[in-house]
Amino acid sequence: MYRTNTCGELRLSHAGQTVTLSGWVQKMREFGGMTFVDLRDRYGITQLVFNMETNPEQFKLAQKLGREFVVRATGIVAERSNKNPNMPTGDIEIHVDSIEILNAAETPPFTIEENSDGGDELRMKYRYLDMRRAPLQRNLMLRHRMAQSVRHYLDLQGFIEVETPVMIKSTPEGARDFVVPSRMNQGQFYALPQSPQMFKQLLMVSGYDRYMQIVKCFRDEDLRADRQPEFTQIDCEMAFVEQQDILEVFEGLTKHLFNEVLQVQFEGSFLKLPWEQAMSEYGSDKPDLRFGMKIKELVTRDTKHVTRNPEESLLPGHASRVTRFDSTGFPAFDESEYIGGIIAAGCAEYTRKQLDELTDFVKKPQIGAKGLIYVKFNMDGTIKSSVDKFFDAAALQGWAEVTGAKPGDLLLILAGKRDKTLKALGELRLEMGRQLNLMDKNKYVPLWVVDFPLVEWDEETARFYAMHHPFTAPKPEDIPMLDIDPGQVHANAYDLVINGIEIGGGSIRIHDAGLQKKMFEVLGFTDEQAEYRFGFLMNAFKYGAPPHGGIAFGFDRWVSLFAGLNSIRDVIAFPKNNQGRDVMQDSPSNLDEEQLKELGIKIS
Amino acid sequence: MYRTNTCGELRLSHAGQTVTLSGWVQKMREFGGMTFVDLRDRYGITQLVFNMETNPEQFKLAQKLGREFVVRATGIVAERSNKNPNMPTGDIEIHVDSIEILNAAETPPFTIEENSDGGDELRMKYRYLDMRRAPLQRNLMLRHRMAQSVRHYLDLQGFIEVETPVMIKSTPEGARDFVVPSRMNQGQFYALPQSPQMFKQLLMVSGYDRYMQIVKCFRDEDLRADRQPEFTQIDCEMAFVEQQDILEVFEGLTKHLFNEVLQVQFEGSFLKLPWEQAMSEYGSDKPDLRFGMKIKELVTRDTKHVTRNPEESLLPGHASRVTRFDSTGFPAFDESEYIGGIIAAGCAEYTRKQLDELTDFVKKPQIGAKGLIYVKFNMDGTIKSSVDKFFDAAALQGWAEVTGAKPGDLLLILAGKRDKTLKALGELRLEMGRQLNLMDKNKYVPLWVVDFPLVEWDEETARFYAMHHPFTAPKPEDIPMLDIDPGQVHANAYDLVINGIEIGGGSIRIHDAGLQKKMFEVLGFTDEQAEYRFGFLMNAFKYGAPPHGGIAFGFDRWVSLFAGLNSIRDVIAFPKNNQGRDVMQDSPSNLDEEQLKELGIKIS
Repeated sequence: MYRTNTCGELRLSHAGQTVTLSGWVQKMREFGGMTFVDLRDRYGITQLVFNMETNPEQFKLAQKLGREFVVRATGIVAERSNKNPNMPTGDIEIHVDSIEILNAAETPPFTIEENSDGGDELRMKYRYLDMRRAPLQRNLMLRHRMAQSVRHYLDLQGFIEVETPVMIKSTPEGARDFVVPSRMNQGQFYALPQSPQMFKQLLMVSGYDRYMQIVKCFRDEDLRADRQPEFTQIDCEMAFVEQQDILEVFEGLTKHLFNEVLQVQFEGSFLKLPWEQAMSEYGSDKPDLRFGMKIKELVTRDTKHVTRNPEESLLPGHASRVTRFDSTGFPAFDESEYIGGIIAAGCAEYTRKQLDELTDFVKKPQIGAKGLIYVKFNMDGTIKSSVDKFFDAAALQGWAEVTGAKPGDLLLILAGKRDKTLKALGELRLEMGRQLNLMDKNKYVPLWVVDFPLVEWDEETARFYAMHHPFTAPKPEDIPMLDIDPGQVHANAYDLVINGIEIGGGSIRIHDAGLQKKMFEVLGFTDEQAEYRFGFLMNAFKYGAPPHGGIAFGFDRWVSLFAGLNSIRDVIAFPKNNQGRDVMQDSPSNLDEEQLKELGIKIS
Repeated sequence: MYRTNTCGELRLSHAGQTVTLSGWVQKMREFGGMTFVDLRDRYGITQLVFNMETNPEQFKLAQKLGREFVVRATGIVAERSNKNPNMPTGDIEIHVDSIEILNAAETPPFTIEENSDGGDELRMKYRYLDMRRAPLQRNLMLRHRMAQSVRHYLDLQGFIEVETPVMIKSTPEGARDFVVPSRMNQGQFYALPQSPQMFKQLLMVSGYDRYMQIVKCFRDEDLRADRQPEFTQIDCEMAFVEQQDILEVFEGLTKHLFNEVLQVQFEGSFLKLPWEQAMSEYGSDKPDLRFGMKIKELVTRDTKHVTRNPEESLLPGHASRVTRFDSTGFPAFDESEYIGGIIAAGCAEYTRKQLDELTDFVKKPQIGAKGLIYVKFNMDGTIKSSVDKFFDAAALQGWAEVTGAKPGDLLLILAGKRDKTLKALGELRLEMGRQLNLMDKNKYVPLWVVDFPLVEWDEETARFYAMHHPFTAPKPEDIPMLDIDPGQVHANAYDLVINGIEIGGGSIRIHDAGLQKKMFEVLGFTDEQAEYRFGFLMNAFKYGAPPHGGIAFGFDRWVSLFAGLNSIRDVIAFPKNNQGRDVMQDSPSNLDEEQLKELGIKIS
């Protein structure tokens, strides 16, 4: 028997008992003829004591121990004279009668402590050692707890867990598929699923009514900072539902998880924010609503019908403002389709250096603004701006009225193409949120973003792409527009956003074979292409498909949100690096000729 | 709103309520100005009634319905005059006020009923329709229930669910890996895991203590009748345990599942049967213990030291029997290494035809016996055998004493090489079990098979192969024999067998880097090969690996056992056929040139 107790459970009430513990040597200290060893396992740390006087033999043995040795120790639980109130086991120690080394350990390449001294590469290579550290253990236990909680909740709601296949047909649309050469069907390939989308829809056609699965998905993308080639989704689908039914069920799941795992409660329903409003007020389809700082529009010109007469191109109600701008002769404004700004409250005192840094920030290639215009509304009533040459105090005061700037505030303005400028303002807003500490880690603001565009036009390939995927239903009232102006059609789709992170997204699906066919046409598929890729789904729709819809949550991201992390890497046990490599296993790796030959493929 | 209730929940107590149901048309009947429609969903069937007199408009609409149409109906719950006690909803019907066709359906290619008229191929192609049938729905819901139950139990036992990667390093040993070409690391490949074996061991090295996962595994094998290229394991590992600890935990899991899902209870601990005894008494390493009919050994000769003098080669205690055989001059016996038989109780009346069929059975290539010897011990005391020429009544009576045959019994004897003959007797025993109805579908007899050989010699490649896998620990007392005679070493391994089905298997693992190195030597790996394939694991063992062990259960098989099925195919939502194809998706399929080029591979 390796242990009677874990290293986390002994208390003062156990004093006098003889116990056996097993674990890892966390730390050793010598002090006046005594050796103290902190013994660690998943459950905690318990102090072992070796006494030179009373047990010289075991004392000697203890001196042979080193960090991360695996040992079994038997002894008597005793009250500590020097209690440690920071540890649950801090009231006791074990007076060791016998100790046995179960496995020795070489000195680890970095310290196994709360904050390790190991670099990223080293810790990835020795992932099994890094995972001994308490933060990683907490993350993975949090992940475990969340997974159980999700399934338990959905089970009670009547969802059935169904395992969908991992080796499926390659039907790439959007990201690239990972593929698997077939030995038994040479020259042919399976694909790994980017999501079980079509299978879960088929399950609805099959009458399973409510489906759920926590499932691995795969995308062969060039990896950005926080992407993994394999990632995990909480994948769900429901039949005989409308959008509101789905939002209610998954708002319930969200509240349940927050309550059960973080002990955080929400009052009332989550805000529903139309996509267009999210973009125009926050410059993002996943706004962080922990703070306000809404984007204020100064002017928008209609891009669709460019005209020489600015009066004609104004959005209703903006006439007075635009008139004022148009009279200035400031080229950055006069040539812009859109001008907007945000108010950084109380930042009128920002220094030249701080403003330069903000200008550098918005000019970064990934943000791409040409420059930043600022207006300081000083406490003494004076106004100082970077465009004093072009605008007088009255004009600037007019901007304060439009944007709601108060004395002491800083107005930051960007101008340019509408979509791009809004996104840049969104990034600037987040940057100011960070600088002003408006993103409280312990505050959570969930919302639904709804009414997305159904399709996006891609200039390069000169075709529409589905904003979510080709099975998303248009809003019923917009269906007639599919023939006329697909870009104006809204999707019956929704994203769950928390603190600026897209936690999940889904839609009501098309369940009508005719409408699905029309959608494939809009996306520019020929009948043959549609049939080859999605024939089995369209066929299924002919035999009685119920109205249905669903949602998928990014589980890695949700766990990292709950763990208070910015990256998903440390909520995954064995992640891959930015080159898609597992540096611990040294994978991917070469195959021998025999394997390639059997598969009927060659390296080119 | 699509429904106020499901098709399974309305009872007499709902009479008078106005309800809305949605579902599929299961069946329609016309009877005296009334149309009766059985409306089906996952939860049950409810009868809708349309009355020509009281609601002619809706009556007309109902006549347009067809099988598998998806409809929404609103009406009043009413007591049936003609109740159906076989349905939970059989006391009521819905008097329909309005019905709406949500989706029409073409006539399905086979009937969606308890027993379909569709052939296997057709049902696989239209899997989404086959899955509407009640037996499939029951299977998948059983699977769901079992998965929740397994995780819930293991969670309470302190197991942590950890997701291990799906794209790993290719280290084939035994079966072939499926591989995934890497686009970002051209010329290199990931593999899909045959099991998460090494990862779960690393999790023990990392101190996670108790790990569990219900996880997809992959083997690129030539598919036998009941294999799938992707299958599901309940995968578990524990640290600081000995064999007995593991057996207790998973006996607990097994009992929990039986109790919770099937309401079956077991008394006491499961039998532990050494592998050698399982082979010699049942001719199988997964004996079906629902019935006895143990194999009785008549003689074994020592094959290791072949000798001309039969007396010398006898196993102790068998001298008298062998002496008798050896005096007969019956070549099939005299030339055999092993002679054994089973008693078919009460089968002395078997006809010539029945015996011929049994002879054909044992001569089938997959069983491979040369012939069958029978002895009928008739009720009247006479004895009739197929070897009357060689053995007199006294000799045959001697066999009855050895085997325990009673008047009325039939003794069936096979002779030949020991291992092969035992396996053939095992098959014959199962066949007799079937013929005599000894395999009660409602009886479950679980047991642990233990003390497997560690390695098996393969003549063809002239090397040892691990019987389980290369990480299985030898029994401590057998370790010295690793150097002398590896074939004699027993593994610290165990299989859970229920009703002749291997439900799971596992072992205590090697946790010592030196012993693991020795094991790789026994298996004929060079240091370089071992380092290339398993280097990261051996490296991990240097930094403090705890003693550990685990088990993996074949989840598909376990569900099919509980479902009372002989095949795993219908407990999997979207299975592949014997050629590894998904005939519904028509996958695997060709890739276009562009995809291949990006991956840097060619079809040869």
